[in-house]
Order: sequence, then structure tokens, then C-alpha cells
Amino acid sequence: MYQQYRVVPETTVDLDRREPADRSAFAGDKSAGREAAKQLNRRLESLQELLYAEGRHKVLIVLQAMDTGGKDGTIRHVFDGVNPQGVKVASFKRPTPQELAHDYLWRVHKETPGRGEIVIFNRSHYEDVLVVRVHNLVPPAVWERRYDQINAFERQLAEEGTTILKFYLHIDKAEQKERLQARLDEPEKRWKFAKGDLAERALWPDYQAAYEAVLSRTSTPYAPWYIIPANRKWYRNLVISQILVDTLEGLEMRYPEAEEGLEGIVIE
Amino acid sequence: MYQQYRVVPETTVDLDRREPADRSAFAGDKSAGREAAKQLNRRLESLQELLYAEGRHKVLIVLQAMDTGGKDGTIRHVFDGVNPQGVKVASFKRPTPQELAHDYLWRVHKETPGRGEIVIFNRSHYEDVLVVRVHNLVPPAVWERRYDQINAFERQLAEEGTTILKFYLHIDKAEQKERLQARLDEPEKRWKFAKGDLAERALWPDYQAAYEAVLSRTSTPYAPWYIIPANRKWYRNLVISQILVDTLEGLEMRYPEAEEGLEGIVIE
Repeated sequence: MYQQYRVVPETTVDLDRREPADRSAFAGDKSAGREAAKQLNRRLESLQELLYAEGRHKVLIVLQAMDTGGKDGTIRHVFDGVNPQGVKVASFKRPTPQELAHDYLWRVHKETPGRGEIVIFNRSHYEDVLVVRVHNLVPPAVWERRYDQINAFERQLAEEGTTILKFYLHIDKAEQKERLQARLDEPEKRWKFAKGDLAERALWPDYQAAYEAVLSRTSTPYAPWYIIPANRKWYRNLVISQILVDTLEGLEMRYPEAEEGLEGIVIE
Repeated sequence: MYQQYRVVPETTVDLDRREPADRSAFAGDKSAGREAAKQLNRRLESLQELLYAEGRHKVLIVLQAMDTGGKDGTIRHVFDGVNPQGVKVASFKRPTPQELAHDYLWRVHKETPGRGEIVIFNRSHYEDVLVVRVHNLVPPAVWERRYDQINAFERQLAEEGTTILKFYLHIDKAEQKERLQARLDEPEKRWKFAKGDLAERALWPDYQAAYEAVLSRTSTPYAPWYIIPANRKWYRNLVISQILVDTLEGLEMRYPEAEEGLEGIVIE
């Protein structure tokens, strides 16, 4: 059911035709959804332990969204209770001068997972065809070639043993309005608000077009995009948890064999 | 009450006089202790958020213990539910050739926290006066001078805004015996056991002496050691949680001021 959110490679995505408030893959209500997510969370906890024990697979999760789309909340809820030792979050902000002195995949490659690790990218190399494109930070000929470069990069990671899942948290403009207003109105949240957020919001159509290009051109069999309906936070968490659990279970992992000759040892 | 576990600077520690099964700082039983730890955990969750929001303090937690002492379990339980984005775990294993090509603090310094971050060291630079000393990996004159070097290093971190807490998880040899035997006897845990663990166990007195030197010589006002009774896991988690919460509350953090001129803005 959740596979309906997977972007089929080489198809053209029209975000207006994707419902951000969709909840069709789950029959229950919000509280049932939260309960289901909690169960998945416990399974994810065990699967992470197994992933670490086996030490064979690398798992990379890419999170992208418009402002207030819920990247932080997703990390917090989906990975609640999962051993922090096995999950690293790499956040990519405005690049430093040192990072800008290198190619745009340099800082990203450094943070990719090793064997037995799960790494979550909070923003990613996709910003180099999103904010960079919308704000004309490089000429079109430069960002234009990046889609293929990114596919080649992700293919190499996948061929070398990385399982890649990419989630676009899809909210609509009305939902963003509510969330921004909440930041303004709640004194404890106001510090998160910057006037620059309004200027970014004004570029909504440009960002949506840039996301459509990303989703249409970089969803591949080895690194698929999922467009997650994210107006409802509980549904967003549930769907992502389910996709993660299904994917990890599909890896058919096993606990490693113990050393030989351990039978009958009694510790003195 | 928990401050009884703090090692007063410039005192000589005798680990035989510290009770690993102590539970004197908490009046309740195991289930009450777990409940209390859960409450602390919720507070830690908020305090981490505030730490991140304020972006002023850096927090470094050092965990050291004998094999099976419970470093992994501590990380898992004490930080359960805390936003993984704000807590990084750095595990220091056998150094790589590149790491060995540098001084022993090089790899450690790279992992220290930035503003608003909590970093947990799972093992640390202290291994360079523990395993290195016990196995004679460098001459005595080399490890001997490291205590002062480490104090100087930690002083500099502290002076530049890092709050440092160091926990030695104190178990006794009988408890280690049970935990190692459990690894052997439970098929799902057996992969964790290596025959080399027995050789290390045989060096118990040497390690205890090395730990006593560490605790006696590197507990400072700016980077105190706590000797945590760790035979009982629930008590260990409770005491560490309490010390952490008390320390973070002592920082008197505040949410940052919002930008000026946000009053009355209505999002369009």
C-alpha cells in the first residue's frame, strides 16, 4: 500500500496531483496510527541492532522538504528509542568556505554511512539543485548537469552496498502558513522564525518546480524517492516508519556466527 | 545525594572501597527507579532542545568501563527519546594507521562537540592510559606524562565553553563473570563474545590499577569523574540521568530572543 508513494523512475511528477493530506494507506484514525507507528518503532529498534551486528549493509536516508515540512519532527519520531549509537544525523546547512572550495558532493560523501550504520541526511546534495537553482547561485548549465551527476553518485554508493531511501515530505502552502504562524504566535517557538522565511515562502512555485524536476529525474531503482503526504504528522511518521521497516526486513539480515569453540566455556 | 559519586580532585581512589552494587542515593525499588529515570529522561529531552536552541554550550560526556560494564546500555537508556539530531556518539576503537600517525588526542579532538551539541564518547582518550598502559603499548615515560596532557586538553575545552562529565561505570569481577557467561549462553548474543575477552579479563587487577590512576589524577573541577555503581543497570541509568539533568539545569540556559519586529505579522 505504501508503495503508492514511490516515484516510478522516469515518470514526470506533478506535485499538484499528489494530495498532501492523503491518508488512504491506513484505515484507522490518528490514535490508531500513532499506536501502529509505535509498534513499527519497536521493530525498527531491533532491525537497527541487527544491522549493526551483521555489519554488512549501509543505510542512507535522505530527507527533503519545504520549510516547516517536518524533517526534524520526522527524525525525532521515527527514530524514537532507536540506539543513538547506530543512527547518525548529518545536517547540511549553508556551505562553509572550505566546503565551497570543493565540489558539491565532497561534504556529502564524507557523511555517507559505513557498514552497519544508518545515516539520515537532513537536507542533502539535493539542495544543490533546489535552493541553488531557485536563487540562481550557479548558471543553469551547471545545475542542469547535476541531476545525472547525482544519479551516478548514488548508483556508485548503491553498488558498493548502500541502501538508499529518499523522502520528500509533501505539505501544501496552506499547511506551511499555519505552521509558520504557529512559530510566530508561540513565544517558545518564535526564535525559530526569521523574516527571511517569508521571502522563501514567496518563492513557493519556484521551489515546487525545482522539486518536481528532482523527483522526476532522480528517482531510480537504486535510490527511489517517496513523496510522503505530510500535512498530517502522524500519517507522515507512520508511512516513513513502514517503508523503513519493510526495506530493512527485505535485506534478510542475520546475526553473525560466533567464534568457533565457544561451546562449554565457563567463565572463571 | 548523587554528588557522593563525584571524585574529589586530588584524592586517591581505591576502587575496592567503592561498592558497585550501591543504591543508597535512591530510596525506592527497581521499578520505582525505572519510573524516576523515565521522568528524568523527559526532562533531558527538553533540556537538549533548549541547549540546541540556545546554541551556546557544548557538552561532552565520557563513558569508560571494563568489558560488559554497560557503556552501550547506558547510551541506549539514558538518551532514549532524546532527539538523535542533538546527540552524537563517538566510539573510539583500535586506532587506524592514520590515527596512529598523529598524536593520541588528534582523533579525539575532531569529535568534540560544537555549540548546542551533546557528544558522548564511548571509550575515549583515556584508553591511551588504560589499554595502552596495561599492554605496554608505549613506554611508561610516555603514558606517565599523559595524565597532565589530558588535564591540559580538557581544561582548554572547558575554558572554551565545554561542559565535561566523565563516568566510570563500576562493576565487580563477579558481575562481569555473569555478563560474559550470559553472552556465551544466549545464542543471539554469542557473536559479541571473543576469546580475547577472557585474556582481558585475566588482566582485571592491572586494569583496576590503571583506572585508579585515571580517577585519582584526572578528576578536576572542570572535568570531574563520577564513579557510578553499575552492577544494577537501573540504578546506573538513574544516577547518570540525574547528574546529567542537574548539570544541564545548572547552565541556566534560555531560549534565544526572536528577531525584532515580528509582532503582528500575519502569514499570507
